[in-house]
Amino acid sequence: MQRPVTLFTGQWADLPLETLAKKVSQWGFDGLELACSGDHFEVRRAITEPQYVQSRWDILHKYNLKCYAISNHHVGQAVCDPIDSRHKNILPAYVWGDGKPEGVHERAAKEMMDTARAAAAFGVTRVTGFTGSPIWHLLYSYPPNNFAEIEKGYEDFAQRWNPIIDVFEREGMKFCLEVHPTEIAYDFVTTRKALDAIDNRPGFGINFDPSHLIPQFLDPAAFIGEFANRIYHIHIKDSKRYLDGRKSILGSHLNFGEAGRGWEFVSSGHGDVDFESIIRALNRIGYSGPLSIEWEDSGMDREWGAQDALAFVRRTDFAPSAVAFDAAFRRDQTTSQAAS
Amino acid sequence: MQRPVTLFTGQWADLPLETLAKKVSQWGFDGLELACSGDHFEVRRAITEPQYVQSRWDILHKYNLKCYAISNHHVGQAVCDPIDSRHKNILPAYVWGDGKPEGVHERAAKEMMDTARAAAAFGVTRVTGFTGSPIWHLLYSYPPNNFAEIEKGYEDFAQRWNPIIDVFEREGMKFCLEVHPTEIAYDFVTTRKALDAIDNRPGFGINFDPSHLIPQFLDPAAFIGEFANRIYHIHIKDSKRYLDGRKSILGSHLNFGEAGRGWEFVSSGHGDVDFESIIRALNRIGYSGPLSIEWEDSGMDREWGAQDALAFVRRTDFAPSAVAFDAAFRRDQTTSQAAS
Amino acid sequence: MQRPVTLFTGQWADLPLETLAKKVSQWGFDGLELACSGDHFEVRRAITEPQYVQSRWDILHKYNLKCYAISNHHVGQAVCDPIDSRHKNILPAYVWGDGKPEGVHERAAKEMMDTARAAAAFGVTRVTGFTGSPIWHLLYSYPPNNFAEIEKGYEDFAQRWNPIIDVFEREGMKFCLEVHPTEIAYDFVTTRKALDAIDNRPGFGINFDPSHLIPQFLDPAAFIGEFANRIYHIHIKDSKRYLDGRKSILGSHLNFGEAGRGWEFVSSGHGDVDFESIIRALNRIGYSGPLSIEWEDSGMDREWGAQDALAFVRRTDFAPSAVAFDAAFRRDQTTSQAAS
Amino acid sequence: MQRPVTLFTGQWADLPLETLAKKVSQWGFDGLELACSGDHFEVRRAITEPQYVQSRWDILHKYNLKCYAISNHHVGQAVCDPIDSRHKNILPAYVWGDGKPEGVHERAAKEMMDTARAAAAFGVTRVTGFTGSPIWHLLYSYPPNNFAEIEKGYEDFAQRWNPIIDVFEREGMKFCLEVHPTEIAYDFVTTRKALDAIDNRPGFGINFDPSHLIPQFLDPAAFIGEFANRIYHIHIKDSKRYLDGRKSILGSHLNFGEAGRGWEFVSSGHGDVDFESIIRALNRIGYSGPLSIEWEDSGMDREWGAQDALAFVRRTDFAPSAVAFDAAFRRDQTTSQAAS
Amino acid sequence: MQRPVTLFTGQWADLPLETLAKKVSQWGFDGLELACSGDHFEVRRAITEPQYVQSRWDILHKYNLKCYAISNHHVGQAVCDPIDSRHKNILPAYVWGDGKPEGVHERAAKEMMDTARAAAAFGVTRVTGFTGSPIWHLLYSYPPNNFAEIEKGYEDFAQRWNPIIDVFEREGMKFCLEVHPTEIAYDFVTTRKALDAIDNRPGFGINFDPSHLIPQFLDPAAFIGEFANRIYHIHIKDSKRYLDGRKSILGSHLNFGEAGRGWEFVSSGHGDVDFESIIRALNRIGYSGPLSIEWEDSGMDREWGAQDALAFVRRTDFAPSAVAFDAAFRRDQTTSQAAS
Amino acid sequence: MQRPVTLFTGQWADLPLETLAKKVSQWGFDGLELACSGDHFEVRRAITEPQYVQSRWDILHKYNLKCYAISNHHVGQAVCDPIDSRHKNILPAYVWGDGKPEGVHERAAKEMMDTARAAAAFGVTRVTGFTGSPIWHLLYSYPPNNFAEIEKGYEDFAQRWNPIIDVFEREGMKFCLEVHPTEIAYDFVTTRKALDAIDNRPGFGINFDPSHLIPQFLDPAAFIGEFANRIYHIHIKDSKRYLDGRKSILGSHLNFGEAGRGWEFVSSGHGDVDFESIIRALNRIGYSGPLSIEWEDSGMDREWGAQDALAFVRRTDFAPSAVAFDAAFRRDQTTSQAAS
Repeated sequence: MQRPVTLFTGQWADLPLETLAKKVSQWGFDGLELACSGDHFEVRRAITEPQYVQSRWDILHKYNLKCYAISNHHVGQAVCDPIDSRHKNILPAYVWGDGKPEGVHERAAKEMMDTARAAAAFGVTRVTGFTGSPIWHLLYSYPPNNFAEIEKGYEDFAQRWNPIIDVFEREGMKFCLEVHPTEIAYDFVTTRKALDAIDNRPGFGINFDPSHLIPQFLDPAAFIGEFANRIYHIHIKDSKRYLDGRKSILGSHLNFGEAGRGWEFVSSGHGDVDFESIIRALNRIGYSGPLSIEWEDSGMDREWGAQDALAFVRRTDFAPSAVAFDAAFRRDQTTSQAAS
Repeated sequence: MQRPVTLFTGQWADLPLETLAKKVSQWGFDGLELACSGDHFEVRRAITEPQYVQSRWDILHKYNLKCYAISNHHVGQAVCDPIDSRHKNILPAYVWGDGKPEGVHERAAKEMMDTARAAAAFGVTRVTGFTGSPIWHLLYSYPPNNFAEIEKGYEDFAQRWNPIIDVFEREGMKFCLEVHPTEIAYDFVTTRKALDAIDNRPGFGINFDPSHLIPQFLDPAAFIGEFANRIYHIHIKDSKRYLDGRKSILGSHLNFGEAGRGWEFVSSGHGDVDFESIIRALNRIGYSGPLSIEWEDSGMDREWGAQDALAFVRRTDFAPSAVAFDAAFRRDQTTSQAAS
Repeated sequence: MQRPVTLFTGQWADLPLETLAKKVSQWGFDGLELACSGDHFEVRRAITEPQYVQSRWDILHKYNLKCYAISNHHVGQAVCDPIDSRHKNILPAYVWGDGKPEGVHERAAKEMMDTARAAAAFGVTRVTGFTGSPIWHLLYSYPPNNFAEIEKGYEDFAQRWNPIIDVFEREGMKFCLEVHPTEIAYDFVTTRKALDAIDNRPGFGINFDPSHLIPQFLDPAAFIGEFANRIYHIHIKDSKRYLDGRKSILGSHLNFGEAGRGWEFVSSGHGDVDFESIIRALNRIGYSGPLSIEWEDSGMDREWGAQDALAFVRRTDFAPSAVAFDAAFRRDQTTSQAAS
Repeated sequence: MQRPVTLFTGQWADLPLETLAKKVSQWGFDGLELACSGDHFEVRRAITEPQYVQSRWDILHKYNLKCYAISNHHVGQAVCDPIDSRHKNILPAYVWGDGKPEGVHERAAKEMMDTARAAAAFGVTRVTGFTGSPIWHLLYSYPPNNFAEIEKGYEDFAQRWNPIIDVFEREGMKFCLEVHPTEIAYDFVTTRKALDAIDNRPGFGINFDPSHLIPQFLDPAAFIGEFANRIYHIHIKDSKRYLDGRKSILGSHLNFGEAGRGWEFVSSGHGDVDFESIIRALNRIGYSGPLSIEWEDSGMDREWGAQDALAFVRRTDFAPSAVAFDAAFRRDQTTSQAAS
Repeated sequence: MQRPVTLFTGQWADLPLETLAKKVSQWGFDGLELACSGDHFEVRRAITEPQYVQSRWDILHKYNLKCYAISNHHVGQAVCDPIDSRHKNILPAYVWGDGKPEGVHERAAKEMMDTARAAAAFGVTRVTGFTGSPIWHLLYSYPPNNFAEIEKGYEDFAQRWNPIIDVFEREGMKFCLEVHPTEIAYDFVTTRKALDAIDNRPGFGINFDPSHLIPQFLDPAAFIGEFANRIYHIHIKDSKRYLDGRKSILGSHLNFGEAGRGWEFVSSGHGDVDFESIIRALNRIGYSGPLSIEWEDSGMDREWGAQDALAFVRRTDFAPSAVAFDAAFRRDQTTSQAAS
Repeated sequence: MQRPVTLFTGQWADLPLETLAKKVSQWGFDGLELACSGDHFEVRRAITEPQYVQSRWDILHKYNLKCYAISNHHVGQAVCDPIDSRHKNILPAYVWGDGKPEGVHERAAKEMMDTARAAAAFGVTRVTGFTGSPIWHLLYSYPPNNFAEIEKGYEDFAQRWNPIIDVFEREGMKFCLEVHPTEIAYDFVTTRKALDAIDNRPGFGINFDPSHLIPQFLDPAAFIGEFANRIYHIHIKDSKRYLDGRKSILGSHLNFGEAGRGWEFVSSGHGDVDFESIIRALNRIGYSGPLSIEWEDSGMDREWGAQDALAFVRRTDFAPSAVAFDAAFRRDQTTSQAAS
């Protein structure tokens, strides 16, 4: 019950920031993770209009909210992805431009650099987001992959993102990749490979989100253990498997919430994520940043759910033991009781 | 946290209705499902005494309680069952009469028709109850069943209940069978067959109670999905399996609460029912009626438990997502974030 | 690979004994457990016709087959059961008589006494069979049982069977109840109660058949451990649960083999019975009698299956360790290696 | 132990047909499922060279082998897929042509029509294969799918395949889609949709292969049950999950056999497929065609494995029960024993 | 929500009793189980200083706290253990003396007799503690145990503890062994043997603590059932298994809290103990004494955790059913509803 | 089916080598792993009598048996262990001497050096065995361990074994520790620490035996993966957990085979070891040495079991895929079929 709890605003972009801030403050959140969507945080204005970033803080301060991170998932996705019509819907018009892939890639890369600058100007140290992936569509090797092409995918990623990370590091910022299907890293193996591809440089780390690991049968706490020194930000989000022999873990090309899917995102505390193990792992690695609730559940009222999730996080996030500090002292008197 | 929560009064028939109503109101329930037991709801008086139904409402209104359904489980049981001495204990004397089976069957059928009339007079639209079964005792096929006799059992059921449902439909009432061992329908297969036997007529549906499915290893949420258009009423009741290789799932002819049973009824939220999946299923099919707690737990104080169960239901019954309503709007702006 | 393996002839009663004996001998069985069905073993003839039992042995000897036990399941069932039309199909006409229950009970009891005498005359020491149950139909307590009636059921059983066991003990025979749903004993609890009801007298023991324990989630090896001194005969029979949330463990009033059942009998080695644990348990208690395959599988060719089951038993039935006999000797030299 | 067992030749295309036929015959297979790879079966020659199909039969007959089906997986894949460089490796040069997508699609469609004609000329009634998919790459909905595009994918499939199926039906052939990731149908939901898209016309059915269902946590026997009337051919192939919290079920973009994958294809009988349930399901639906072993296991010697798989199939493929045929007879005498 | 909840003070011995009492009272505990550590309870002073026991009560009363038991785990351990340097740290100097084993054993035994006297003087009836074990170090039989030596271990235990229990029984006290690895009894088998070794005399019983059973895969509720008449005191403590194929259940010689252990003690309600089953078992056997929280969790703040554990116990400890008391009455009217 | 299969002779030391060799040869084994027990292999004679080693080979050759390793588990155990009376039973008299611990340690260390020399003289390259452990008895930290003492235990081990390994390395031998409870290394953590303590010198590796990992819930195949370059020899031995909530995984101080133990050693193929995963792991790391069956099962006849285990190993030990060798070739033609 000690880390600040923020709400990620991506799923609330239909509400003006002020409307959302007022609600969230009343619900008891400590702050917001501002998404570059709707009027929540606009990169271009932040680096061109002198008063813009202050206008954001004015709203936040009015409702007594903090901010530790900016999200720019959509634009990051366009840096490495093969571009198709779906990207048009998620990009600002000036990034999409004429939609020719290489131009989109370049403008997206430039926008991510600007996001680093904007976030720095805003006064935070984390940008969360996606990278896209040149090889995601080769997930299932049929027609058989040429696996050299897979290796080349990691190199492409490095080539496109290294210049962006240069800017992040220059600005004192960390880019925090949300490990996620469709990204260059989505599991243990690919995260190892992606970090290796950029020589584990410190400007690039992880926005840990356990909800994407559950449908892959991965162990979130073990993930924190292995990548401890690159865990830069935390999303609290849950997912649940509904496997009964008829529903595929691959999702059946069904939209979230449609009957028949093998898994769904659910409000935190309602799914298969073991958040207590995550809190213990975060205590162990000394993470003291915010816990940012990304709320998404196609079967639950959004406002009821956000409050429910906040209460869940508050009661789950306990402080680590301080007793270890006086272990020498206690050895004589107290730890002798340790195993009774 | 939106559906009304009522208490089924069957397990409290030792208390006068007013005593019970006062307690239940203080505990925070929204209403009662009145059982035809004790002085809670008496069919004969309801159809013969002009003031009787108002007298019931007076008590309910005094304590600010609603009522959506009347239960007449015991009498319904006698419609199809082979009659034995156990039925005497659960029937009004005027239904038991001389106890000769065919007479009991006929008087029980007539009483169920009267229950429809009484409930209609009282102003509710649901009667919950049992049907009995002419073939339950043939559950395990040894000596080997003549399976034509099983089929004949469904026909007998239809023959005895169709005239009753005629009255229900005439009165604008729904009979809600609690799918349950010892009834004509106790699982998926037998529910399909029972509904088919009466041509799926709308006056006959289901009082869904998950506690009877758990000891059969059935999936309650899937049951709601399959029989969605016949889910007319909901009982919130829980059960728990205690299987350790020495305890039989069949119950060992032990009474509830005796050591050694392989399963027990327990206070809701303390057993193996996954109520959240049930709520999600009810949200999906659009059920907006009451959630009626049937409280039974041989190892827990009744009054402590009823309050505990109410609190459990309140925090489990969340509203469905309203975001789908503006999906078109959100597609351009927000759902693009959907999978992050 | 040391105990004799016999085939129980009940499921083959459509074949004359000689036809069956020839097949079974060719398949490699060591013997038969003769059922009182078809021409396999006829109690009345065995005690009235001087040459009859020899005629049975002549057939067996011709095909080099042994016999350790006679089965009379059907008649035993009629001793305690409430009699209905199904019993007519499984009883000899002279036992059924006019079908009036008390007369059937008495003639069935007398026939079981005669079975003891016939089996003794035939030269075996075991009769396997059923007891029936006066209370099986009260399995699920609704309408609520008067549990004093349950206790009375065990007393009735004792009263009806004690005179039969008198004859068994006089003849040096053991009656071996197949613990089974519809019998007085079908699980741990009811077996304890049934044995207690007859004061654990030695003439009454168990024909252990694990296939009836699996659908109850009971542990067959633990059953052998607890009732070790009453395990008088062994049936090798298997069953399998097919639970998927839609199929009930109670069987849905479906016949064996119908789609939709939650469990089935299957050829031994194809189900959920862990036969190796059973063999280890039998080794531990020192059972050296026959393993009698009761073959039943509604989805497999009978003759293919019987041979498959025999091969399965042969490779599963290993000898117990003899090393324990020289443990004193080995302690100095060899068992020092024991845990390496 | 009654259905013919064939070997699918796709994984052996490096061996001339005669070499392979000789080996396979010695190992004891009953026949081959000829792949359109290497010199095994060449469509163009089959429809242009008068002696060609006889030359194939000559080899088969020489080694006493049967053939029930031709496979043309690779070309079928190119009918609907977005074409990329990987397709070049799997297509005959005359189908690939200049590699421009629409031309490839058309030539592939024409080649599949010719495959139907060639197979008919060869004298079999089944062609197994793939369809490709215009929407597979949209598996994970980020950037968010426009789900209307998914629906359009099924329509595209229908539009491209209906003319091919016209030829199949005209020739008296069945096309048998191997339900498989990267195809229009890969699970229950998508198989339903794909069959609906072509109005369940009889010329298009399923080559059932359980190995592709295991990594999706699907129930192969239930699949056979649901699509019983479209199960036209069977592949016997196995796969195994190696999930330990570190390995992703999605495969991590690793090739088969690389350490770290969450699942692998393995020799039949060595994985997670429950083949006995499949045999029981095939017995139930009356499938009497061949069981065609598709052998693939990156960790086992190919020749050792093919023989091991054959032995496995022989001992697993038991005949259905014939006893049901005389059920009426047995009811009086024998089935009375049914549940003992 | 009816049994008193106390805090065991062993893990808080670094705090003076008054400091601890104040905190604990504010948190809402009902009392303390005083450990003979720090200044919490000193045996020597209790039997030599006339005012000492009153001084302890004064502190307790000041904060409105009760006390039902004294703990002297450390000294009990030294009665039977092979003595090594670790014991020096846990024993009062006057018990350790010169550290020669037999002298330590004798002084420890005498101190336990004095503890009985001191506790009696203080006015409680329970002393919780350890016994030590002469054979614990022979846990894994290599070099192979002479199992006669194991039997002798139980005899040694009896010989050393019988005189101590004499004093306990004389003083009207119960010694309550915490069944625990390193003690003479740590599981079902060894508890049976230990109780047998002292002829089940009533002065020696069990301080039930489920946290020590979980890493052994034992069933705590079944333990209460079997040893019902020797359950004299309850510790509420939890533990959790973290097995993933790399972590050993044996603990790897790692200290609690070190990464890599296969199990840990955790704050109650956060582990694998099913406390509800324990409460039901305690209700069944009629235990009405205190529930004493022994708080230990190497990954959680101690003060946050103690309050969390208290809240957990309060909401888990429900009263047994009182309805059984009027069962006779209800049989006619209400229990007829029992199974609906 | 390609690696040689040997029998470890430790459990057969009551038989003269020639007697055993004759049996084993008839059963079809390829060779023996000679234990320094009975007359199987005597170190002192091997280094002092010129003809001794040849006499052993004469017997082996007579029965066409190979030998790849000598075992000296018992003497190795005495190098680091706290010495007690149990060691007397497992040591040659000249090693035990007067039994004073430090002398025993020294003589045991010298004997292990001689074992290296003797095995070298005999012409093998592997000695399997134990190390003992100075800290095993501190397994459960109560009285609380001083964990510095644990660290010192690894140092002691290194100090005592480094001089022995010097001799092994000089002689071109590998010492192969059987990772096992009571040894310095018994799981992943302690194996890492033990190997680190001796700086991972190549003369010291592992005799992999999965049976000791199962009762610790460890993953044997993962163990091979992690310690791949130190896997020098393989024992094929199995164990099985019998946990039912009443039996402790710690073994309850019961001897192997006694009723009530939570786990047992069982004949290979009859327990919880997944040998196929082990074979796949060995194929992956390229282990081509012998598979040495260590046969131990307290519930099975020794001679029946040894043959059963041999047959099990033969059918489980398949060759790795050779197809990878021609992968370049197949890429164009065949692997294109890879995922169908």
